[in-house]
Amino acid sequence: MKVEGEDYRTIWLVGSSVKTINQPLIPHRFEVVSLDTHDQTAEAIRTMVLRGAGAIGAAAAFGMAQVFMEAPPAEPARGQYIDAGYETLRNTRPTAQDLFWALDRVRSAGEGPPPAQAADAAVAESQRIDEEYVEAGRLIGEHGAPLLKEGARVLTHCNAGWLAFVDWGSALAPVYFAHRAGRKVSVLADETRPRGQGARLTAWELMQEGVEVRIIVDNAAGLMMRRGEVDIVITGADRIAANGDVANKIGTYEKALCAKANNVPFYVAAPVSTFDLACPDGDHIPIERRDDDEVLYAYGRDDAGEFSRVRLAPEGVEAINLAFDVTPAELITGLITDRGIISANPQEIARVIGGKK
Amino acid sequence: MKVEGEDYRTIWLVGSSVKTINQPLIPHRFEVVSLDTHDQTAEAIRTMVLRGAGAIGAAAAFGMAQVFMEAPPAEPARGQYIDAGYETLRNTRPTAQDLFWALDRVRSAGEGPPPAQAADAAVAESQRIDEEYVEAGRLIGEHGAPLLKEGARVLTHCNAGWLAFVDWGSALAPVYFAHRAGRKVSVLADETRPRGQGARLTAWELMQEGVEVRIIVDNAAGLMMRRGEVDIVITGADRIAANGDVANKIGTYEKALCAKANNVPFYVAAPVSTFDLACPDGDHIPIERRDDDEVLYAYGRDDAGEFSRVRLAPEGVEAINLAFDVTPAELITGLITDRGIISANPQEIARVIGGKK
Repeated sequence: MKVEGEDYRTIWLVGSSVKTINQPLIPHRFEVVSLDTHDQTAEAIRTMVLRGAGAIGAAAAFGMAQVFMEAPPAEPARGQYIDAGYETLRNTRPTAQDLFWALDRVRSAGEGPPPAQAADAAVAESQRIDEEYVEAGRLIGEHGAPLLKEGARVLTHCNAGWLAFVDWGSALAPVYFAHRAGRKVSVLADETRPRGQGARLTAWELMQEGVEVRIIVDNAAGLMMRRGEVDIVITGADRIAANGDVANKIGTYEKALCAKANNVPFYVAAPVSTFDLACPDGDHIPIERRDDDEVLYAYGRDDAGEFSRVRLAPEGVEAINLAFDVTPAELITGLITDRGIISANPQEIARVIGGKK
Repeated sequence: MKVEGEDYRTIWLVGSSVKTINQPLIPHRFEVVSLDTHDQTAEAIRTMVLRGAGAIGAAAAFGMAQVFMEAPPAEPARGQYIDAGYETLRNTRPTAQDLFWALDRVRSAGEGPPPAQAADAAVAESQRIDEEYVEAGRLIGEHGAPLLKEGARVLTHCNAGWLAFVDWGSALAPVYFAHRAGRKVSVLADETRPRGQGARLTAWELMQEGVEVRIIVDNAAGLMMRRGEVDIVITGADRIAANGDVANKIGTYEKALCAKANNVPFYVAAPVSTFDLACPDGDHIPIERRDDDEVLYAYGRDDAGEFSRVRLAPEGVEAINLAFDVTPAELITGLITDRGIISANPQEIARVIGGKK
């Protein structure tokens, strides 16, 4: 997608280095960082230099490929190194299903051939995953765009645009498709505290593509729906259980309740890789708890143009900083997947997603 | 209530000066400001040096008393001055019912007697209003405290504690009563973007009183209720319509929907002065729209200890900053008033509140 008129992807591999847009600097500065080892890649996932289901998946894939590129040739050191690298990457974020899915695919690909060909096989698989995310975004956009009629006003939560994937995105892919097809579409972006992915990333990437966007605080989504100013809600997902329950950025559940109460259609957009059919329902999805400081401070650019933070809360107070919540399937109008729009029920998920790829 | 062990009220009158706690500095610095003219008082209401239903009401009362103290003795200048002062105070905030209620009471009191006694009468009435707010908070606390059993976990939105009134508060008054009665009560404070009254004011005043409090982002209230970690929600109100619909800080409606979906009792605490029986329902309550910058920036204390702000969003983006929303009566379990706990329905409101005082 476009950054100041030039085409970019969120993440790509050059030799043994992962290149990615440094997302905590967005929207204030555009900078590509190089992650030269799997440890650096893991750290970038953990500290959210990149975030979002597909971007995490692609980073995990490339990180696992790095493990194979770095691994010593001889056992037992080789096996130990691969195990340790896999665990390091696996322990970065607990909720995002794409992380585990991508890691396992690249690990299998790397462990198939003899050691001399393992790195090439792992790199090839990671590149395939990266390309599949682009294609999944494109398909989600194609399937979802017909939901957006001329003048459609879309509310989204967090960032599930191209910055959350490799290109196109999930929730925003239908918006980009409708926009490129010449339809007028506008977006209300929830700020998405504590990390502000809506105010920072969603607003920025939509502006870069010329899509009309306005920011509201997370508290305002209910009022906007009650006033009839939202035609459709589309969010992304970090994990979808077998019964259709969805774990996504904290606050998604509240928006789904608001949509239900106001008869606004509520869609979740996600590729097949985000489904976890081994997980029976949302209560079984582990929810990441992050550092209190994300809640107690706000981070941004100060008036002198420097990156800075301000403390919002009293010294010594505690916070509870849960990064995701669960939206029960019954609040979801439909799931926009790369295999089409499906209902959030176990039968349809098993039929369409079962067997994955 | 207590500030570092000393008793304070939120607002009081000394001679012709209104003294009030400078709330934008809380929790980082405690400072009492002096508002020496009705213009300064109006500006303090408008810029939210003080905020909250009862604090606005008391400030409006004192401000109107200042108008009478300042007014020239001879007509027509006198009448013009009183009219203009009344309008200045009236146009500070559009949603808060207590503003209009207090202004009208003090104006009537000042216009009753001959001009020479008008200022004394207006001051006396404003002092009565101030004392009535203290008493209303005490009664709300008394009526509401039995709702909080040993170990009760209360979720509240924005600040409807003593800083929002003169003493005690509305939503937090039952918490203070239960706490002083020796019961263990803990509070989850929604941060309350954009202005952070929950993270700043509610957390601070509860800590000063020794009540256990933890901060969550506004997005997390739904998850906490779904997890069964909230026993009761209590919020304040800025205006209650004749049918029981409640205008309160933006986001209140979302919390009410979350409470309903999770069978958590949802109470609104407010004195009689917050009811507007001339207003048929929530759709008739004017909703204040404030400056976009409140959404696009966060304000707090930087690491050097200075008051500062950080920009959260891209340059050039627009926001929609509506300060209040409307919670429909059917989502409200009960209204905790100074006349007891009543149902949010037109008959009971007319019976108990009708005729006001």
